[in-house]
Amino acid sequence: MTEAPIRRPGGRSARVRAAVLDATLAELTGEGYDGLTAESVADRSGVHKATLYRRWGGVDGLVADVLSRAAGQPWQVPDTGSLRDDLHAITQAVRAGFTDPDGGAAPRNLILAALRSPQGREALTGLFEARHGLAAGVVTRAVARGEVPEGTDAVDVVRATCAPLYYRLFVTGEPLDGPAARRAAEVALAAARAGAFAPPP
Amino acid sequence: MTEAPIRRPGGRSARVRAAVLDATLAELTGEGYDGLTAESVADRSGVHKATLYRRWGGVDGLVADVLSRAAGQPWQVPDTGSLRDDLHAITQAVRAGFTDPDGGAAPRNLILAALRSPQGREALTGLFEARHGLAAGVVTRAVARGEVPEGTDAVDVVRATCAPLYYRLFVTGEPLDGPAARRAAEVALAAARAGAFAPPP
Repeated sequence: MTEAPIRRPGGRSARVRAAVLDATLAELTGEGYDGLTAESVADRSGVHKATLYRRWGGVDGLVADVLSRAAGQPWQVPDTGSLRDDLHAITQAVRAGFTDPDGGAAPRNLILAALRSPQGREALTGLFEARHGLAAGVVTRAVARGEVPEGTDAVDVVRATCAPLYYRLFVTGEPLDGPAARRAAEVALAAARAGAFAPPP
Repeated sequence: MTEAPIRRPGGRSARVRAAVLDATLAELTGEGYDGLTAESVADRSGVHKATLYRRWGGVDGLVADVLSRAAGQPWQVPDTGSLRDDLHAITQAVRAGFTDPDGGAAPRNLILAALRSPQGREALTGLFEARHGLAAGVVTRAVARGEVPEGTDAVDVVRATCAPLYYRLFVTGEPLDGPAARRAAEVALAAARAGAFAPPP
């Protein structure tokens, strides 16, 4: 305590947060959301359960904070010089992220866990707002290149590109295979070129 | 027991099922999925809790059976003579169903409850399969009228039409307003006309 690094306030707090949120994600990989408890996160992270409850309130708060952390992290957006290739890169990245046999369970279970509480759903809204805003860059660059009409709603093109993937993953439960991912990109592209995301002239 | 109507096997059983599933839906309206318990359904339906557990296994089984019942019920598909008007009718119906101040909570909470268990998610897949199959009729009729190319994947047009609505409702948490519903129909229409749902010629 006497050696606390005064010039780095939050240093220990940030390390605790990282350990706890990493442990939360790891628990979601192994056990799914049913196995996620404050006890299991405490055991895995080495942080006392009382600290978890005081700082995060419980499992819903842990899940929400994992999403908040993700919303603040950089996310590489494709920039191939072609809207078609950029949209395909986005749908393939989403598909790979959720269907990878090793790593796909954690993001999938994280979202299912978030859907279980108002706090989780609010954090989900924040994460998607951040990601949509970043990915919209592929569309604004395409507008600048003249690939799609002026006035195209860039965020809405991103929504249309991603929605069919998440619809399969989290609503209909249909498989998210390669053809489905490619179709989503081609549909959004065709509609954008046709001016469906721009106000009527 | 001695007066059981022998010539209507399943008559009483069907009445019990209807009472129990109606009570499950009513509980989802009032209490949300957190308040849905076998006890509350037993109280509301007048069916003994032991019967509920024996026949449905618990809350997840109740939720799944509500969805299975819905999958078997008729669902009126628009047939206006125009693909644009049919798609707009579908998106407006989905929007109205989920955002109605009085009736919207039940279907919304039903889907959130279904997402909580593998059994619920499987029933959800069955319901969407049934609904997609019915709604695909608007696209096959449009192909016959020459509005969209031969070979257009009718079910996939329906998926693309509905996905942005469910993406808002159950993933991003963004509001499902009138403009969003109209945009979804116009995007699917533009892409269908452009041949994005048909194999390359």
